[in-house]
Amino acid sequence: MYLTQGLHRAMQQHPDRLATVDGDRTFTYARSAQRTAKLASALHSIGVKPGDRVGMLALNSDRYHEYLLAVPWADAVLNPINIRWSPAEIGYALRDSQTNVLFVDDAFSPTVPALRASYPGLHTVVHCGNSPTPEGMFSYEDLISSGEVIDDVRRAGDQLAGVFYTGGTTGLPKGVMLSHANLMTSVLGMLSVGSFLSSEGRLLHVAPLFHLADLAAWAGQTAVGGTHVMLSTFDPTAILQTIERQLVTDALLVPTMLQMVVDHPAVGEYDLASLQNVMYGASPISEAVLSRAMKTMSSARFMQGYGMTELSPLATFLRPEDHDRPDLLRSAGRAAPCAEVKVFDSNDRELPPGHIGEIVARGGNVMLGYWNKPDETASALRNGWMHTGDAGYMNERGYVFLVDRLKDMIISGGENVYSTEVENALCEHPAVAACAVIGVPDELWGERVHAVVVLAENSSATAEALRDFCKTRIAGYKAPRTVSFADALPLSGAGKVLKRELRERFGEDRPSKADSY
Amino acid sequence: MYLTQGLHRAMQQHPDRLATVDGDRTFTYARSAQRTAKLASALHSIGVKPGDRVGMLALNSDRYHEYLLAVPWADAVLNPINIRWSPAEIGYALRDSQTNVLFVDDAFSPTVPALRASYPGLHTVVHCGNSPTPEGMFSYEDLISSGEVIDDVRRAGDQLAGVFYTGGTTGLPKGVMLSHANLMTSVLGMLSVGSFLSSEGRLLHVAPLFHLADLAAWAGQTAVGGTHVMLSTFDPTAILQTIERQLVTDALLVPTMLQMVVDHPAVGEYDLASLQNVMYGASPISEAVLSRAMKTMSSARFMQGYGMTELSPLATFLRPEDHDRPDLLRSAGRAAPCAEVKVFDSNDRELPPGHIGEIVARGGNVMLGYWNKPDETASALRNGWMHTGDAGYMNERGYVFLVDRLKDMIISGGENVYSTEVENALCEHPAVAACAVIGVPDELWGERVHAVVVLAENSSATAEALRDFCKTRIAGYKAPRTVSFADALPLSGAGKVLKRELRERFGEDRPSKADSY
Repeated sequence: MYLTQGLHRAMQQHPDRLATVDGDRTFTYARSAQRTAKLASALHSIGVKPGDRVGMLALNSDRYHEYLLAVPWADAVLNPINIRWSPAEIGYALRDSQTNVLFVDDAFSPTVPALRASYPGLHTVVHCGNSPTPEGMFSYEDLISSGEVIDDVRRAGDQLAGVFYTGGTTGLPKGVMLSHANLMTSVLGMLSVGSFLSSEGRLLHVAPLFHLADLAAWAGQTAVGGTHVMLSTFDPTAILQTIERQLVTDALLVPTMLQMVVDHPAVGEYDLASLQNVMYGASPISEAVLSRAMKTMSSARFMQGYGMTELSPLATFLRPEDHDRPDLLRSAGRAAPCAEVKVFDSNDRELPPGHIGEIVARGGNVMLGYWNKPDETASALRNGWMHTGDAGYMNERGYVFLVDRLKDMIISGGENVYSTEVENALCEHPAVAACAVIGVPDELWGERVHAVVVLAENSSATAEALRDFCKTRIAGYKAPRTVSFADALPLSGAGKVLKRELRERFGEDRPSKADSY
Repeated sequence: MYLTQGLHRAMQQHPDRLATVDGDRTFTYARSAQRTAKLASALHSIGVKPGDRVGMLALNSDRYHEYLLAVPWADAVLNPINIRWSPAEIGYALRDSQTNVLFVDDAFSPTVPALRASYPGLHTVVHCGNSPTPEGMFSYEDLISSGEVIDDVRRAGDQLAGVFYTGGTTGLPKGVMLSHANLMTSVLGMLSVGSFLSSEGRLLHVAPLFHLADLAAWAGQTAVGGTHVMLSTFDPTAILQTIERQLVTDALLVPTMLQMVVDHPAVGEYDLASLQNVMYGASPISEAVLSRAMKTMSSARFMQGYGMTELSPLATFLRPEDHDRPDLLRSAGRAAPCAEVKVFDSNDRELPPGHIGEIVARGGNVMLGYWNKPDETASALRNGWMHTGDAGYMNERGYVFLVDRLKDMIISGGENVYSTEVENALCEHPAVAACAVIGVPDELWGERVHAVVVLAENSSATAEALRDFCKTRIAGYKAPRTVSFADALPLSGAGKVLKRELRERFGEDRPSKADSY
């Protein structure tokens, strides 16, 4: 199993089907395969050796698709880079993985001098934008023109396919090493459910491709030989237009996107009836947003995927039929056909249903390890299970309910407080547009429940009013003792609130609580 | 990925669903898991060590299901044995793989003395029948009663899951080593198609479980946590009754079974409307039988699987929608979502559509190798592709059409003759009930096309009449020059004609023709 396998099948079974649609530019699978093979040969000609890491810092485009295929075709290793990172963070990831060859598009070519300053080892840059190629970079299309159609290399499934940097929400980024088999196991697990992607379908890529959520959807759509519809930026109007014009059948949307699309004032003017399947995930979703989305996109089946980069990324699915049951809408679903999922206590003993512990998973989708981090790898994979760092419980039917990131859990006066529970209560207040709850050091309580609140437009509320509001919904010790107001919350590339940054701002970062419950 | 994963999910998600139905005996997944864990501990107590091979020589039963789970649970290796083999052949497989622990049911416990004579290393026999346990054997139920519920071991997906002996049609049996990941890749590829098996379904096991065709169906049904309905012997009436009484939804049937069921005089008296999916394969099917089956089992979607033990076993699928096109009914379908399939010439160069060569495949489903046969392994897996030994071609849309086993191909007067083409022509003669066409040494022609014919009841035909009949359908040089009449054809466990035996009887076995086309 390897990422290019689907391309070979598509060439054999329907070479004239569109592989990519990027604005007015389209390529059939036959063209896509030819371009991939030529790009792979060009990678060799510019010095890429087997096993070398090749980075990609770009918005979604048809060339991202070709990059994802050409790098393994050339026997090299993918390193898709978080587009929301600073040059210093990107420099860290390039240096850590010794990624000396990087693709950049028009949006990111201006950052190349800063990247080179941050990581002088970056010796080769390929410009894959549509503007003229800047000085000192290779032109993507010139490379393809000069390339030859070479054979796809033989490989074993357990060979390293890519290094995927994560850690937006915690400390220094870690390079997650995934094999071809890891990724394809997750893909086959997703396809086995039968409620997402199809060979005749058109998948919208609007979530960033560097992130495993959309990358896995890409790998699945490539495996079945369907069409990729690329959108370079997140804009609700563009999404609605593209769904209508390109007859999009499948979409992977993170909750923020889903909300902005369904709450768009002109949403009713677009024909969304081509939608068959919507997969959502990567961060928590509110029931209200989900219900509105299911109404607005009524032709689509909804499926939630939960997982993490280290699980390639899928661990559980909340299937379309589960969405008919209101009591399950807050669940992350059940173990995927490729995985085994359990809830462990801090001694790695399985907990019975209803008890909160750490979600763990094992299966062919579990990463090879963290790049150059044997200790972190051993810790994450101890006893053969991937420890997700997510706190949650399972019901009597195997449905997983997440309660918090373990490190976001607050211990105040000896009581466990799950930040998400407090956030859910706070968010019900009409003046609250967004909020995040963290623990900050407190001499009396050990930790104090602290809320950072973004007020809705033309609304106001005092800290005391919010605290009193919460007390009507949750236990008094869980209500925020202190509240700060902010214009916005810091978000990671995947749209997750960066609580680490909030803790740095409003208190000191605390030691991990992984063993404290 | 490993065979027991689905059992863990089923325990978590629906412990009260039936895992097995065997006559009046039923076990829920909760009971099944408990029995499996106890049997695994019992295996340890009778001396089975990690990696030891444990054989199973039995008809289909709920205990076969438990064996298939308990052996990996105990960190040991499966060796399901062909029930149609002679004690000498079985002895060979036991000795070759040093399988010293064997399960036998009532049908095979009488052969144990002969097996021990053939392989004195067989020191432990477990009786898993329903009759009283014979002297010198362990009682299956006593072992379970005495066992403890132990944890399922941790393991890597590439660990050896079983040694599966094949070779019914050629020379000495070879032990195909399949890993857990090999088998689960094939299973996920099968489930990805979405036209076979379901968590709420009831799968009929009537094809023998030792054979990879039904074993993969078993692994798929276990992966989704559906119910297994066991039938110990092939009897068309029993199949019809079981489908009706147990509301069977899915069935894996080899062509012979399919034919005998749909041609059963009382077929119209049974309600088969519960059938949703029928998978067929493992040997060629005639269009006439397939059409009758599709009419008789009109509620079912039909899917053909093609592959071999070495591919765990699936390489291609002819999907339900393909069955609407008469021109595709003779095809074996297209590459499965887990595999890449091509047609190679004798120098391993890919052939264009329409050209006959050897079918090859690669992917995560390709075996680890042959047990203790590094040369045969290297030859079968040369250049990274599994060489199936099947001759065929692909059309412009990737549909595979098989023409013959390479070693059954005849070269007569310098012309290639595909035995299946001659057989198809011969079988159209009303007096021919069954036939097999082989090449026999001939001084003038190198090889001579020779037919072995079983005449239909109350029919007669001369060799000359049959030869003339063929000439009206195929080129003269392909028509059989000589004909022998027989009462029956020798069949392998999978229902394939043993041409090797016919060649031994009617001519000398010839060297392989693998490199001659």
